Amino acid sequence: MKIDDLKRLIRDIPDFPRRGILFRDITPALGDPEAFATICDAFVERYRELGIDSVAGIEARGFLFASVAAYLLGLPLIPLRKPGKLPWKTVSRAYDLEYGTAAVEMHLDAVKRGDRVLIIDDLLATGGTAAAAAALVEGQGGTVVELAFAIELSELGGRNNLGSRPVFSLITL
Amino acid sequence: MKIDDLKRLIRDIPDFPRRGILFRDITPALGDPEAFATICDAFVERYRELGIDSVAGIEARGFLFASVAAYLLGLPLIPLRKPGKLPWKTVSRAYDLEYGTAAVEMHLDAVKRGDRVLIIDDLLATGGTAAAAAALVEGQGGTVVELAFAIELSELGGRNNLGSRPVFSLITL
Repeated sequence: MKIDDLKRLIRDIPDFPRRGILFRDITPALGDPEAFATICDAFVERYRELGIDSVAGIEARGFLFASVAAYLLGLPLIPLRKPGKLPWKTVSRAYDLEYGTAAVEMHLDAVKRGDRVLIIDDLLATGGTAAAAAALVEGQGGTVVELAFAIELSELGGRNNLGSRPVFSLITL
Repeated sequence: MKIDDLKRLIRDIPDFPRRGILFRDITPALGDPEAFATICDAFVERYRELGIDSVAGIEARGFLFASVAAYLLGLPLIPLRKPGKLPWKTVSRAYDLEYGTAAVEMHLDAVKRGDRVLIIDDLLATGGTAAAAAALVEGQGGTVVELAFAIELSELGGRNNLGSRPVFSLITL
């Protein structure tokens, strides 16, 4: 399947999770094995030769792609989770939302100094979660090789919130 | 890696998420590519020939194993999610917790009448979430071929809450 053909498997949901937001629903792409494989295989193809040490997935939809990429690349899988979900010693980074703040957490032993880490999420919007995830990895002495997304909503300018870190997205909407 | 060797990659966390609970932390197994592959490959081996139509994963840790299984089996991946997360039309099933209730949701178009669905989660404890997930699938006319878990905490008796549905777990603790 071509990347452009994936776009028809992303369902637009107006006013979700609240009025004025156009939500991009990836469940039709998850439900199409060829589409899901196209996304996962594209990540694997891109990252196979980059000397990556581990793959971090951002809860929850990032888990869907990061786990397959980690499996196929034969690399450790790091879950980056919402606060209070990881049971052992964690590091945490808060980030601003339109109203209030949120945070993302990682186990303290997930990244070692010098590790080259790939971070995967399903969608890049404003980049707040991704920037916090990258800061977590870097705070432990890791290097973010790239932030990879299935979808990028380019008009929200998320790349600008990720500094000089490399960013890759398969589908730009 | 042998299944028995996986046990040393499950970290016991006393008093999480609250006093008196011994939490089984799978992040060391996720961080060991051979261990993670052993779990995923065992699922794929078991389910390859069973005429399954789709693989449903329960948010959030169930996503980690269900996504790899769906990819390797070449089957549609269905996310079963916490309330309010799925953006389109959903069906919902509530279940009891020790204090209060929770619910799991599925998109209305995720399962068609007659579909044979494999449900995957990381851990079987009391079985409340898994029973609600199975009821969601059955409520749409699907058949739960099996409920599959990486870990089963047998002393909590979760199987008894799953009725006559087939249950499989790789590791029993």
